[in-house]
Amino acid sequence: MSVQPPAASPPVAGDAQQLAERVVAAMLERDAFSKWLGIEVTDLAPNEVTVRMTVRPEMANGFGVCHGGIAFSLADSALAFASNTHGRVTMSIENSIRYPAPILPGDVLTATAVEESAGRRLAFFTATVRKANGEVVGLFRGTVYRTSKDHFPTEKTS
Amino acid sequence: MSVQPPAASPPVAGDAQQLAERVVAAMLERDAFSKWLGIEVTDLAPNEVTVRMTVRPEMANGFGVCHGGIAFSLADSALAFASNTHGRVTMSIENSIRYPAPILPGDVLTATAVEESAGRRLAFFTATVRKANGEVVGLFRGTVYRTSKDHFPTEKTS
Amino acid sequence: MSVQPPAASPPVAGDAQQLAERVVAAMLERDAFSKWLGIEVTDLAPNEVTVRMTVRPEMANGFGVCHGGIAFSLADSALAFASNTHGRVTMSIENSIRYPAPILPGDVLTATAVEESAGRRLAFFTATVRKANGEVVGLFRGTVYRTSKDHFPTEKTS
Amino acid sequence: MSVQPPAASPPVAGDAQQLAERVVAAMLERDAFSKWLGIEVTDLAPNEVTVRMTVRPEMANGFGVCHGGIAFSLADSALAFASNTHGRVTMSIENSIRYPAPILPGDVLTATAVEESAGRRLAFFTATVRKANGEVVGLFRGTVYRTSKDHFPTEKTS
Repeated sequence: MSVQPPAASPPVAGDAQQLAERVVAAMLERDAFSKWLGIEVTDLAPNEVTVRMTVRPEMANGFGVCHGGIAFSLADSALAFASNTHGRVTMSIENSIRYPAPILPGDVLTATAVEESAGRRLAFFTATVRKANGEVVGLFRGTVYRTSKDHFPTEKTS
Repeated sequence: MSVQPPAASPPVAGDAQQLAERVVAAMLERDAFSKWLGIEVTDLAPNEVTVRMTVRPEMANGFGVCHGGIAFSLADSALAFASNTHGRVTMSIENSIRYPAPILPGDVLTATAVEESAGRRLAFFTATVRKANGEVVGLFRGTVYRTSKDHFPTEKTS
Repeated sequence: MSVQPPAASPPVAGDAQQLAERVVAAMLERDAFSKWLGIEVTDLAPNEVTVRMTVRPEMANGFGVCHGGIAFSLADSALAFASNTHGRVTMSIENSIRYPAPILPGDVLTATAVEESAGRRLAFFTATVRKANGEVVGLFRGTVYRTSKDHFPTEKTS
Repeated sequence: MSVQPPAASPPVAGDAQQLAERVVAAMLERDAFSKWLGIEVTDLAPNEVTVRMTVRPEMANGFGVCHGGIAFSLADSALAFASNTHGRVTMSIENSIRYPAPILPGDVLTATAVEESAGRRLAFFTATVRKANGEVVGLFRGTVYRTSKDHFPTEKTS
């Protein structure tokens, strides 16, 4: 997937999809940890983002299975992208994850974060982490706080 | 702290502290992700472990603050060590974290995991993530499942 | 809805739907708190149950809105029913609820609990609490432990 | 405990303890659900409140043990009181509870809610539910949002 707006269909100003793409592209550009994890954005819409990564050997814990922090981090990245697509800087308050099944090095994981409900300041998301065969290996929830700060503040005045 | 049994005081069979140290040493040895994070064990007792790491620039997210997955992973490592000190292989079922304050690159974090209550199969832990100045930056909870498998099964028969 | 098996279609022995109905009927019969709340079961299938109640004035808290414990209790009852439909006695380990919007006396609430994933001993459920107009007012998650005890143990030997 | 200011030591205006007592007294007065549960406030300080109740037969679920909603509701009432002691109307965003041990009719429960950390808008609390013998039967966490509304707004102008 490209997080750049496609050249052939010039985006309308204020378009929610275009804003979502610009926010995620800017966040990814500066997100060193997501890069280290090897995270790619594969689908992106307002309030809903899917990311993907491959579990590497150095992500295993002492039992030879993937450290719980990896699935959490993947889901948390999906949450961060999805919850910022509306253009206001949004931070996690509280996140949780449940582990239905173990993850092994070599597994290709996706995490899809979706907004469940949103108010002016607070919003609730879920993110589901799956293996390539569709098996659910992480059930993640995130509660976020929307600040008053815009991702692209200067454009408001143009 | 050394996670090796001290040479001068040969451990008594069944000693809980010695078992805890052996389990954590074995887990750390094989824990590639904790190594990547730069995690050290600084305090260790049965059911209670403190770990420490320094937040590196590549652990920041798109906002220049530490990715939520880092504090989670540190706390999760503390939980994994603490919940396995009794010698049975123990896995996370469900974890949550709350973020009272942001974490920045350069911060030295500690996470102390403590058992709150335990039954035969299930146990509940908390882990508190702090900056060097004592500020709490992560409030973590973990629920774990104790399998029937021992970390050092062969010794039972010796 | 009736939680009794319909007379016109005699259930097959071992039928999952019939077992679910018998378990829930037996649980409801003895569930004094669900009765006090005025909880009715409106839909019931293996691993999925919907319950309904009307918020009464005495369920309000000091702010005139419904006490958070009410929505939780409704969702928890849905979870208890849904997670026991397979016939083994199943208990909650850990539950959480998020409150997207306030609930007022007079509101008619439904809670639908659904299994998200299940292993031999542990299973993960969600329950969504809605007002009659469909608005989501509670996002609930439950983690349960399945004991070895059957709800109807004598029948196994018949 | 009395939630009225003691007659012998007239409270100083702006005193945090007196404000806490006034807020809790006003909330209790209007809290029909806490009254139905039989909840009493036994200790009260700024950001920390203990409540007590006795589990009645009608609070049992279908297994003869106390419905999970009861311990949650007790802890949630402790949270509501504790998080409002500072005088601003404060609402729960997200709560969770873990059940280390079953509760039976006849048990006398206490729940102590304590602030773990607080910012301008958001605060994190824990509440521990105990039986009379000290056994922990509920580990509760609450995240709250502080509105701009005061409990006693008119006094600010007097």
